[in-house]
Parts: sequence; structure tokens; C-alpha cells
Amino acid sequence: MKLGRQTVEFEKPISIECAYSSVGKKEADGPFGNYFDKVFDDELIGKDTWEKAESELLKETIISLMQKNKTAFSDIDYIFSGDLLNQCTSTSFAIKDFNVPHFGIFGACSTFSEGISLGSFLISGGFAKKVICATSSHFCTAEKQFRYPIEYGSARCPTSQWTVTGSGAVILSDANKGPFVTHITTGKIMDLGVTDANNMGAAMAPAAADTILAHFKETGRDEKYYDLIVTGDLGSVGMKLNIDLLKKEGIDISNNYNDCGNMIFNQKEQSAKAGGSGCGCCASMFCGYFYKKLLEGEYKNILFVPTGALLSPISALQGESIPSIAHAVAITM
Amino acid sequence: MKLGRQTVEFEKPISIECAYSSVGKKEADGPFGNYFDKVFDDELIGKDTWEKAESELLKETIISLMQKNKTAFSDIDYIFSGDLLNQCTSTSFAIKDFNVPHFGIFGACSTFSEGISLGSFLISGGFAKKVICATSSHFCTAEKQFRYPIEYGSARCPTSQWTVTGSGAVILSDANKGPFVTHITTGKIMDLGVTDANNMGAAMAPAAADTILAHFKETGRDEKYYDLIVTGDLGSVGMKLNIDLLKKEGIDISNNYNDCGNMIFNQKEQSAKAGGSGCGCCASMFCGYFYKKLLEGEYKNILFVPTGALLSPISALQGESIPSIAHAVAITM
Repeated sequence: MKLGRQTVEFEKPISIECAYSSVGKKEADGPFGNYFDKVFDDELIGKDTWEKAESELLKETIISLMQKNKTAFSDIDYIFSGDLLNQCTSTSFAIKDFNVPHFGIFGACSTFSEGISLGSFLISGGFAKKVICATSSHFCTAEKQFRYPIEYGSARCPTSQWTVTGSGAVILSDANKGPFVTHITTGKIMDLGVTDANNMGAAMAPAAADTILAHFKETGRDEKYYDLIVTGDLGSVGMKLNIDLLKKEGIDISNNYNDCGNMIFNQKEQSAKAGGSGCGCCASMFCGYFYKKLLEGEYKNILFVPTGALLSPISALQGESIPSIAHAVAITM
Repeated sequence: MKLGRQTVEFEKPISIECAYSSVGKKEADGPFGNYFDKVFDDELIGKDTWEKAESELLKETIISLMQKNKTAFSDIDYIFSGDLLNQCTSTSFAIKDFNVPHFGIFGACSTFSEGISLGSFLISGGFAKKVICATSSHFCTAEKQFRYPIEYGSARCPTSQWTVTGSGAVILSDANKGPFVTHITTGKIMDLGVTDANNMGAAMAPAAADTILAHFKETGRDEKYYDLIVTGDLGSVGMKLNIDLLKKEGIDISNNYNDCGNMIFNQKEQSAKAGGSGCGCCASMFCGYFYKKLLEGEYKNILFVPTGALLSPISALQGESIPSIAHAVAITM
């Protein structure tokens, strides 16, 4: 049922039947290291290029998800997947042998909740029974593509974020097994004119604030309804801006708010500057940590709000601003 | 209603309420030049870079679509859009001021039918009343990104295709106004090992054949049901392979089959080699030509099958094959 311009409430909530997370060594060394399902110590994951490694990371994550849930690919109706690499090649090469109808999606680091949103629509509409939503990122592919050659060892500024080597994947279904997706609030592209590609938290914060605000207005809920509001990868800089932007609207989320990018690393000890980023940041944190805490009953209601910075190296070099988007998913155990 | 693994039949068919197409000068000089709604003679479209020009092309197309249909952006529930540029920046910059909930999609040149598929799901499921599906491509951005600098003037091989400068956009709705989307058949990624990025028709033909075959098997229809089966941008090389692949399965589509890439240029006179390609090829041909011919009654049933080659310049340089996908949409007037 549509509650407003951006929010849909599902009559029968959608089951997040299973979740699986994989990360690299640095992420495993962080404060949530023990929660991730699989750790790849080798950043090349046995491949000869980083791009092939990222694709393998995503592929292995989805295969492990299927094994964990004892589900065959022939029982999956659709895969929604995307990533940060040019033309989303991590996804295409990862899933090409699975023989499952596929929708490629791109929302930068909001891709994971975009997939959960679209997958939930298809299940709620009766078009699918089981859907996989997955994404990945890799520090080395992202640095190479968006910033400088790894070997160059360029200095990082305090607002810059560290792309997570990680992947997360879920199976959504019509089962009566929580946690459940109850609402989705779809983001609009926001652009307040930030042009600093080393400060993506600042670029994405307005999108997060806008989507959270729409979610509250359209559902009638407020910040107290949720045990936790958790954004994707605003990092320590962007999450403060998000808090400030919402305060201006009369909403104080600071008591029950965190950000996956702010959480995944020990920022100082691990030289992660403003925190983690990348499609794999919120996906691995959700599948590794939050999903387990929902199952254990530690959290009952979470508003999960991955955010995406929709820039490219070309748009940044041409002096363009950084449009951003955030898609919120309300999850209940 | 799900008819099989890949095909959904809509109980109430989805209206393609309006369509709009824009192209560049070369496309306007081709055999269907008179059908396109708008022609931009200036390949920079008043901007200072090709990337900004492509984004403007998409933006102008969507604005013109809204004006043609006398619809306000506030009446649009969702936009599904994507393009070929790294991180889909044509889309993000084109639609950032429209203030409409947005889902970014990537299916290379199959993006247009991916959007129509997802938009139809949302309308049929009752989650939306009006959805925009749009895409674009531009010869200069594609050459620069995927091949060689334009200024280099590199020779083109006979199997290579010419990226269309064009954009197409439709409004899908729950109105009782044809033409209608009656079925969608969602593609799986196919990869028969073609590695020649100058022969994308050959790489994509197996995906087209696989999706068409699934459509026939799952709907019980055959090639005679359709006035025309039209693929996206296999070009003259790929469409012959598609015919041959389907012949091996006992299906002869050669009597009522064509391909937008094969149609859009006078291939010899316009030096377009194997024909047109790019997200804007099938989108501009559908919105410019086929939509009008459906309205006029010249066609009653079309199976529209855009195809996408899911490669990147990096994957090609690393010697990878070219995974491909094709999403079919059955359209009835």
C-alpha cells in the first residue's frame, strides 16, 4: 500500500530468509570482524586481477548464501545485483553461470537497499517467491578506478573514506520467517552542490536526511520507533551532517543512530580516516552484524538507509557536483 | 501471473501511455529520420563536453515526454533509467532536478526493456500509477569511453557498430490506452565465450535467442503470433546469428524479424558498418517509429527484445569474454 510519494507499506511483510557476508582482512581486523561469515585474507582471492577478485568475492558470497539456506539456483526467481565498477562488471561476471533471470541495478553504495526494495516489490506483487539481492566492493578496484594507482600510495585527506572489500547477499521470500521488510522509502536524487570527491559523506548526507524525513512523514513514525537508524556509508563526517540536517527539521536521531561506514573500522588505529564506504560496506555490515542481531532479538526495529554518491571520475574531473540518493528499508523482527 | 521461470503475464496489461524520442543528425539522416520527435543537429547540444551533452539529451527527452503527455513530475511515481556511461552519470545528472523517486538500472543496451519490465511490475502490483522508463546513448561518449579518442579517427572493422546518439522515454501507466505491455520475459546472462569487443552482435545473439525461445515456450506463442519480432542492437551480423541459433531450435523467425540496429542507419551509405548500437538505439526506434506504427494500427503485436553486452573496457583488456542479456517485452495494440 502506498503511504505517500516515496513510501510503500507491504500488506504481508517480506521475509529476509537468509543473509551472508564476506570481507577482506582489514574488515576482519575491525571491531565487527567476528560477525562476518567469511574472510578472504588474500586480496586477490586467487585471481590475477583485482576486478576478477571482486567478481569472485561476489560470486562466492552468493554461492555460500545458497549453501547456507540449502536453496538451489533453480528455486530463485530473480537476482538483483550491481556494483561500483564501470558497467557493473563484478556483477555480470559473478552471476553469469547461475542461470537465473537477472536485473542489473546501479545506485552506487545505495545499491543494496535498491535491490531489497525492488525484490520486495516483486514478491509482494506475486511475481516472485524467492529473490537474491547482492552487491560488492573492493578497495583495490575502487582506488584504481576512482582515485589513484594503489602503488602510488597517495596521502588521504581526513574526510576521505576507505572502500570496503566486502560483499553481502540476502534471499528475500514470501516465507513467514523474520526479519521482515515492512516498508520501503525510495530516494530521490539530491544535489546540494558538493564537488569534493574526497568528501562523499558531505555529498550524501542530504540524500539520507531527505529519505529519513520522507519516511517519518509518510509512515507517521518517528525516530523513537526504531531501535536503530543506520545509514550506509556516510562515515564519521557525513553522519554528523545528517544529524544536523535532521535537527533543522526538528528531528533528533542522535540517540539511536549509527552508520555502517562509521562502524566497520577502528578509524584511527586502522587509518580509515572518515570510515568505510563502497557497496560492500552496508551490505556486509547488514548481512554480517545487523541480521544476526535481529535474529537474536537485540534489535526489533531497524531503519536501514544505504546512501549512494552518483559521481564518476569523469564527472568529477569536469567539475560537476555529486548527486546522491538514499533508499530506506524498514526491517522488523 | 507467472507463466514460467522467465515470463510474467499481466492480468491487466500495462499502458504505454506516451513515448518520446530524440536523436542526433546522423540518425535523422537515416531511413527513419522523419519519425523521431526531436533532432539535435549540434552533437554537443549546447554543452561543453560530450558527457554533459548526453545527459542533456536524456533530460530534454524526458521533459518533452512530459510536455507531450501534459503530465507533471509530481504525478510520476518512479523513474527507471540507466545508460552506458561509467556509473550511469547521464541518468543521474539528467534527472536530479525532477524530484521523483528513482531506481537506477544497468543492463547495457537492454536497459530500456529492463526499465519497462520493472515499471510494469510496479504498476501491476499496485505500487505505482505512472512510471517513466528512459535511456540514452551518445556516439562521442561511447567512442571515448569504450574505444578510441574521436580525434584519432580509427578505422572500423566490418562487424563493428555505430553507437546511436539518441534517447527514448515512455510513460507507463494503469490507463486503458494502448499500446499495452502484456508479457515480459526476463533474460538470464548468457556467455558463449565471444571476446571480440568489435563484434558485439555475435556476443549478444545467444542472449536474444535464449530469451525469445523462453518466451515462446512459456507463453505457448510462436513466431507467427507476432507481426514483428524486433531485437535491440544486434546489427546485421548479430541478427543473422540470432536467426541461425533459433533455427537450430526449430524456430524460423526470418519472415517477421528485424533489429533496431540493423534498421536505424543506411549502413553502407552512412558508413555504419554492421549497424547501430547503444541504449538509445532501440529506445529511439521504439519511441520514434514502432510506437507510432502501433498507434496507427500497422502493427498489432510486437515482441520487443533489447539486448545488452555487459562488458567494460577493463574486462575486454583483461581478455574476458562478453556476457550478454536480453529482456523481452510483448506489446499489443
